[in-house]
Amino acid sequence: VGREHVLSAPDELLGFNTDWTGRFVGNAAAVVRPASTEEVAGVIAACVRNGWPVTAQGGNTGLVGGGITRAGGVVLSTRRIDDVRVDSAAGQVIAGAGATLGSVHERAQQTGLSYAVDLASRDSATIGGTIATNAGGLRVLRRGDTRAQVVGIEAVLGDGSVISHLGGLARDNTGYHLPSLLCGSEGTLAVVTRARLRLSNQLAARAVALFALESAKSAADAALHLRREPAVEAVELMLRLGLALVCEATGLPAPFPGQHAAYLLVEVSAGEDPLLALEPIVEGLAAIDVAVAADPAGQRRLWAYRERHTEAINTLGPPHKLDVTLPLDAFAHFVDTVPGVVEGTRPQARVWLFGHAAEGSVHVNISGLDPDDEAADDAVMTYVAALGGSISAEHGIGRAKVRWLSLNRSEAEIAAFGRLKQALDPAGILNPGVLLGQRI
Amino acid sequence: VGREHVLSAPDELLGFNTDWTGRFVGNAAAVVRPASTEEVAGVIAACVRNGWPVTAQGGNTGLVGGGITRAGGVVLSTRRIDDVRVDSAAGQVIAGAGATLGSVHERAQQTGLSYAVDLASRDSATIGGTIATNAGGLRVLRRGDTRAQVVGIEAVLGDGSVISHLGGLARDNTGYHLPSLLCGSEGTLAVVTRARLRLSNQLAARAVALFALESAKSAADAALHLRREPAVEAVELMLRLGLALVCEATGLPAPFPGQHAAYLLVEVSAGEDPLLALEPIVEGLAAIDVAVAADPAGQRRLWAYRERHTEAINTLGPPHKLDVTLPLDAFAHFVDTVPGVVEGTRPQARVWLFGHAAEGSVHVNISGLDPDDEAADDAVMTYVAALGGSISAEHGIGRAKVRWLSLNRSEAEIAAFGRLKQALDPAGILNPGVLLGQRI
Repeated sequence: VGREHVLSAPDELLGFNTDWTGRFVGNAAAVVRPASTEEVAGVIAACVRNGWPVTAQGGNTGLVGGGITRAGGVVLSTRRIDDVRVDSAAGQVIAGAGATLGSVHERAQQTGLSYAVDLASRDSATIGGTIATNAGGLRVLRRGDTRAQVVGIEAVLGDGSVISHLGGLARDNTGYHLPSLLCGSEGTLAVVTRARLRLSNQLAARAVALFALESAKSAADAALHLRREPAVEAVELMLRLGLALVCEATGLPAPFPGQHAAYLLVEVSAGEDPLLALEPIVEGLAAIDVAVAADPAGQRRLWAYRERHTEAINTLGPPHKLDVTLPLDAFAHFVDTVPGVVEGTRPQARVWLFGHAAEGSVHVNISGLDPDDEAADDAVMTYVAALGGSISAEHGIGRAKVRWLSLNRSEAEIAAFGRLKQALDPAGILNPGVLLGQRI
Repeated sequence: VGREHVLSAPDELLGFNTDWTGRFVGNAAAVVRPASTEEVAGVIAACVRNGWPVTAQGGNTGLVGGGITRAGGVVLSTRRIDDVRVDSAAGQVIAGAGATLGSVHERAQQTGLSYAVDLASRDSATIGGTIATNAGGLRVLRRGDTRAQVVGIEAVLGDGSVISHLGGLARDNTGYHLPSLLCGSEGTLAVVTRARLRLSNQLAARAVALFALESAKSAADAALHLRREPAVEAVELMLRLGLALVCEATGLPAPFPGQHAAYLLVEVSAGEDPLLALEPIVEGLAAIDVAVAADPAGQRRLWAYRERHTEAINTLGPPHKLDVTLPLDAFAHFVDTVPGVVEGTRPQARVWLFGHAAEGSVHVNISGLDPDDEAADDAVMTYVAALGGSISAEHGIGRAKVRWLSLNRSEAEIAAFGRLKQALDPAGILNPGVLLGQRI
């Protein structure tokens, strides 16, 4: 890769060995920055020969320690593989793993199309990272997660062999579907170097409304009602203390004169008049207060209350970040009761809830805890599983949640995962300790 | 499974040992008909102990010999596992592998929803079979293939272990995505016993039009133009001889007074007035003739010309059935030239083209050839691959296309498939000879 693309000085390594939340600190001995799939294959082959662990890293915005290694070896940064090319005839884009989500959005928009996956860290998060975690983000309700967009993939497997199937044909059943298998595999099966992604038509005219509601439970109930409205593209839940913290930490003005127990941010998209599409929703919700934005600048201002939650919570020190999905009929009950579950375990903890309410999904952040004190995490995870929910909605298992995987997956399933891992990474060098922990 | 559900008399086996086209004849020694996942696990475990091959079979409507075994052993019929339950709150259905596609459609419709995958053999084809082949069908353009619908799966792996993850949560990243991996794996990794599938809203009001066009090439060009019209749900190509054969073999009346070189069947769906949505399409196409149906009975009559192609072609003897996708910019050229490629190789062959033109996909049926004479198949496959296309759009590789897989997939990819196969079916008893042939 060239000497200048191997970093090994302690100060150069620091940023690659510490995750975005500051909770996970790794011990990679070097960072290698290949510029092509061939160079990635060369790096992997060298690591196989030497038995060095390889941890792929994109924008390092992951939230479960999946891009941080504690097994030594090298961090393989994909950031230099950042080419983006739109195939407008097919309505698809081919992007290098190191391209940021934001750069893909920009290129898609230039050709009158859009990429469905969007999240707050769009200017740092990479395509490779969003594939490794099967990122969901803000528009899963109508447009699906990352796996639903990946139509072709190029990657280097754990034995150094290169697979590349980037034709993007609409119908193509010629073997096992490696794009779907690698999507969500958290760097444990292969290093993804390039992908072909489905693009969508640009959203029709949009309107955004922020509703103030009288309780977390009524907001959660309302969100599940809203998911059936065809014009609704996103429904995001926030609570009183979270919104107040966002305003305090970022200097944003409060959206309403008073504070309220819960808030729903609702985005609608409609061919004709999106404000008209909002009307029955406003009437149906009977909210305490509502702020509506039809112009892009106003919409960005309302979205900022939601998107700046992570940043605001981080000002309180490294949080424990949980990210769960509940069965729809258990969601409102969970939102209502989970703060009590945490406080019953660790009275000093503060709980922050926000997220993708229309899908029964919510980010549970906990601050005020020692990074290694997992009692509250354990209580929440056990509670989620008891209600039939998923302990990882979209962040993945990483290192942070390995110990709870068996709450959701049977021994037979975890054993099958282990055999798949061994099939594609026989030397066990790819991201050891992540997803499957030390079990294999 | 009970003695009455093990068939071994030659006349009982005949239907399970012969595929729908009559081209593939197998040699299973018995048919076993389990009624539950547990019984499937018991059957697989017994086969592992005895080294007996197991070929899963649903409706036996596959077209590439994937449900027919030439390795002896047992055919495992899933037909008795045919429960169907709609979860209307989640907008999903849980269906046994042996449920027919038609029964899932019926149950979905009863609750005001619909299942996106539809194909002509809907009343025989099973959910398990459509998952094994990742069936596409008639509405892939807007609603995706089977893989896009499968949100949860229950299956018995090749070692007899049961995996079951049927919660169907919208966001759930807890390990490798087995539903996507098993979808399209053609019974070589596991026997799928049950799935949770995404349902869609019912199509808005529809209209169907049949256009007569002056050449195959102009019809193919027009199809690719139509894929960009938002109201268009399906565009199916037919040619002069195919439509004439359908009328002759089935007794359907000719759609137009004269015969024409090519036909496009176009279905539109629009909230308000679908006939209005058809108007610009009719104007833009400048067809020789057009027949329009706004009522369901009339629409079924027009669809019948397309759907009864397979049945009509079968009256000429077992055809060779190829099923390919071309890059969009090569599609019209392929449609125009592939009959010459076949006739150049086997002058006595007759070529029938029909299929999903909006996605660059077409069924190439060849009649008048000995079942084992693969020279024309080889010429077509080589031609498709040279143009950058897929040798299997939606039928799968089965037994019929094993020898051509390497035209589309590299040695590294096929080796990875083999290692995945070994990971989930270590004894190699599941559908030996299918997809990967004898290579593993």
